[in-house]
Amino acid sequence: MSQPLPDAALDQLFREARSYSSFLDRDVTDAQIHAVWELMKMGPTSANQLPARLVWCKSAEAKARLAGHAGEKNRSKITGAPVCVILAMDIDFHEQLPWLFPHTDARSWFAGDEEGRKVSAMRNSTLQGGYLILAARALGLDCYPMSGFDNAAVDADFFADEPRWRSNFICSIGYGDPASVFARSPRPEFDTFNRLL
Amino acid sequence: MSQPLPDAALDQLFREARSYSSFLDRDVTDAQIHAVWELMKMGPTSANQLPARLVWCKSAEAKARLAGHAGEKNRSKITGAPVCVILAMDIDFHEQLPWLFPHTDARSWFAGDEEGRKVSAMRNSTLQGGYLILAARALGLDCYPMSGFDNAAVDADFFADEPRWRSNFICSIGYGDPASVFARSPRPEFDTFNRLL
Repeated sequence: MSQPLPDAALDQLFREARSYSSFLDRDVTDAQIHAVWELMKMGPTSANQLPARLVWCKSAEAKARLAGHAGEKNRSKITGAPVCVILAMDIDFHEQLPWLFPHTDARSWFAGDEEGRKVSAMRNSTLQGGYLILAARALGLDCYPMSGFDNAAVDADFFADEPRWRSNFICSIGYGDPASVFARSPRPEFDTFNRLL
Repeated sequence: MSQPLPDAALDQLFREARSYSSFLDRDVTDAQIHAVWELMKMGPTSANQLPARLVWCKSAEAKARLAGHAGEKNRSKITGAPVCVILAMDIDFHEQLPWLFPHTDARSWFAGDEEGRKVSAMRNSTLQGGYLILAARALGLDCYPMSGFDNAAVDADFFADEPRWRSNFICSIGYGDPASVFARSPRPEFDTFNRLL
């Protein structure tokens, strides 16, 4: 039976972690990128759908291409980061279920129900996005997640060969520059947004 | 600058954590429920929207009510857990932005755009769902997230007084019974679902 993690870990994951709009000039290695995936892939998704598809823009060329589809204020947060990942989803994720969820015929639950797949892909790829952010933090990295970009343009540019992939959000990752954060926005008390029945 | 968390923490959060379909007979206290919120609320959402609204079903009556709207296989996973939380979203979350994101008029970005709010509420409340699962694990608890229930029936039953709240998914929380887990489903290698540009 697990115990609570030490306070220093809770601080690093939640309490003291911040979204950094600019990053120190320090590389994120390919090995670190792989390590983020190795952690985040372990998080639960419905019927082990794992609908997220990730495109890690690390070269200056890839980051510039992505930044061209972002809102003006977000461009420097992409090009100035060591890496910016496009978190996308495969709306035909069910085609992978025979090997991802082998003990039953989960593919048949979704075949012919594209609207249902879109909802499930959105929900479960976003859950994986939450795991991505916390996996990066657990590995000592900082994040700047963004949804201010042209999803259709990113899809057309990056997924021409994968017409069933849809971008969800993007996230710059690196070592945050402490000078780039402002005071934290308010966080509500339990009773504001919770009910206990 | 943060370092990677110790292996034991990464194991507890990701590598060895599992979804438990049944739980040991051990209470989850109100203080633990509050502690989950105190961690998860710190996670980032777009413009600090924090669209998630949580209803923690802890009494036998509340769990039975919720279980009545769930798929047959999920009912015992609700009634048999110490607590099952409904993670919902407020599709009028923008009304809270004047105090949640006080330094600019973010409310105006969403006013009059209900479709855009629905997408944003879904994305950001689900991110908060990812934080919920990992916050619970960080506190030594186990989870069983579920989307197999009648969302409209839950909304009508639990949110009659909050017609702008929509259920997203539900999650049982407690101390998992090791006898209730099977072998882990496959997890893909990096190259299967990732590209590095």
